[in-house]
Amino acid sequence: MRASELDLIDAFLAPFGLDRSSASAPSILSGPGDDCAVVRPSRGLSLVVKTDAVVEGVHFSMPPFTPEDVGHKALAVNLSDLAAAGARPRWFVCALGVPKSASAAKTAARMGRGMARLAQIHGCALVGGNVTRAPGWTLTLCVFGEAKRARGRTGARPGDALVVAGTLGAAAKGLADLRRGSRTAAARAQLRPEPRLADGLAAGSLPSASIDVSDGLLRDLGHLCASSACGAEVEVDALPVAQGASLDDALSGGEDYALLFAVPRNREPRLLARLPSARRIGRFTEGRGIRLLQAGRPRRLPRRLGFDHLA
Amino acid sequence: MRASELDLIDAFLAPFGLDRSSASAPSILSGPGDDCAVVRPSRGLSLVVKTDAVVEGVHFSMPPFTPEDVGHKALAVNLSDLAAAGARPRWFVCALGVPKSASAAKTAARMGRGMARLAQIHGCALVGGNVTRAPGWTLTLCVFGEAKRARGRTGARPGDALVVAGTLGAAAKGLADLRRGSRTAAARAQLRPEPRLADGLAAGSLPSASIDVSDGLLRDLGHLCASSACGAEVEVDALPVAQGASLDDALSGGEDYALLFAVPRNREPRLLARLPSARRIGRFTEGRGIRLLQAGRPRRLPRRLGFDHLA
Repeated sequence: MRASELDLIDAFLAPFGLDRSSASAPSILSGPGDDCAVVRPSRGLSLVVKTDAVVEGVHFSMPPFTPEDVGHKALAVNLSDLAAAGARPRWFVCALGVPKSASAAKTAARMGRGMARLAQIHGCALVGGNVTRAPGWTLTLCVFGEAKRARGRTGARPGDALVVAGTLGAAAKGLADLRRGSRTAAARAQLRPEPRLADGLAAGSLPSASIDVSDGLLRDLGHLCASSACGAEVEVDALPVAQGASLDDALSGGEDYALLFAVPRNREPRLLARLPSARRIGRFTEGRGIRLLQAGRPRRLPRRLGFDHLA
Repeated sequence: MRASELDLIDAFLAPFGLDRSSASAPSILSGPGDDCAVVRPSRGLSLVVKTDAVVEGVHFSMPPFTPEDVGHKALAVNLSDLAAAGARPRWFVCALGVPKSASAAKTAARMGRGMARLAQIHGCALVGGNVTRAPGWTLTLCVFGEAKRARGRTGARPGDALVVAGTLGAAAKGLADLRRGSRTAAARAQLRPEPRLADGLAAGSLPSASIDVSDGLLRDLGHLCASSACGAEVEVDALPVAQGASLDDALSGGEDYALLFAVPRNREPRLLARLPSARRIGRFTEGRGIRLLQAGRPRRLPRRLGFDHLA
């Protein structure tokens, strides 16, 4: 009995090349295995913090998700917010909720494998965590990035261009594909979303505001507009709809982890030059609310605007 | 439907005097309501990070816990680790898992109330969080403190005195009392543990290592010994057993959030002078393992050593 918690921690840490006595980098004074992680922030930079959770039965089921997919996605959804903020990932902690299961340590090891691979790609070090019993698998991460000046939702101005980096709708199509038992390319967008950290850093201080598309384009754009006290017009023909996805998938689907930017018109060309995958899909306006335009004419908003986490 | 997530967030934030557009202090550049929290760490200090979760049905049930108790305890268990590290609390984020319930927003408001009170006492500001659907209430916090030199589990040396600040056994007795429907003083120790932050700061750099007693004296002392590669002797007659608690409660009960210190003998008098509630309960030894002594003679260890989070 006594070993089970520590066994599971050891299994989870192994893919990171860590054990309970590791503190692996100069900026990490104390890592997993102590009660607190101790890190050394960079002088003059702000600390950018994001916490997000993925819950079995709510955000994923296994199958179709493999444990590696779950580990990847739990970190990806957090890193995506650092990308929107323009922060460079540094460290993260991972609180695991673990259901009763004979194979829990093995599952944790596989989740660790998926998470460690993504963490390594983006130079984000696991520095601590927690393990507790829970009704189902729950992965609640808190990631720390650094930025000279972090971007947020506030700051878009009427007249700013609305720019998106990445495609829209693939994750929603992928979810539908998976429900039909079909592992398409879109399914991969749902299982293993890639946070757009390079785009987020490359954008630098050009955007006036940004947000990632986690809950659907219209809903996240709505958040950005509400925080910035302005409205927006979206040209639906300009949307980078993913192959095979519908317009509704692109407008309301969520989980695409594309980045939305508000950018003053005089900086738009520089932003588009820095982000080859980005394109202009509309503009910010006076007043409130989002309007869709098609061929210059208003188009009705879809009934479902996006994902409410408690709906 | 759409409003429910934001309604719940608003209800939870209100007791903190916050709303979704707040950034309330000079060190907080972006607070709740943006996707990332942005804070400004103090120059020259280390960042001390702790994440811990409390899960309905695992760590608490309501009743006997009130939502205020749950909110208090979720923050207290995290702050206790900062106390052990000797860190000063600064900021925290709170990820809520919310079950389907017509009264969820009201419960969240009451949890916020209990949490906000403790946060204010210790000067720890809520800067962000997350809300998701979950099978039961889950509060996963990540707290950030700062310290010039954080203490950890590593560093105890054979010959160091073993010192405890706070009493032992009350929380275990309180849990038994609550199961009998009796709201005793000990029950309060279980429902509303007080993190010993003042003790943790006052101890300064005198201790060579420290840990808080969350999983039981013997188990947490075991962690400290394992990390420091030494053993320990505990004089059971010296233990500060809480009123009405048994020796087993004190040795293995857990959740007391007392602080254990290893301190070189020549610094022990200064540590005891700084912490009036502290007392010496044993010493660290060569080799491995924990021995109990009573009137100078070995005493058998209890069968149950403490709390395994997956047992």
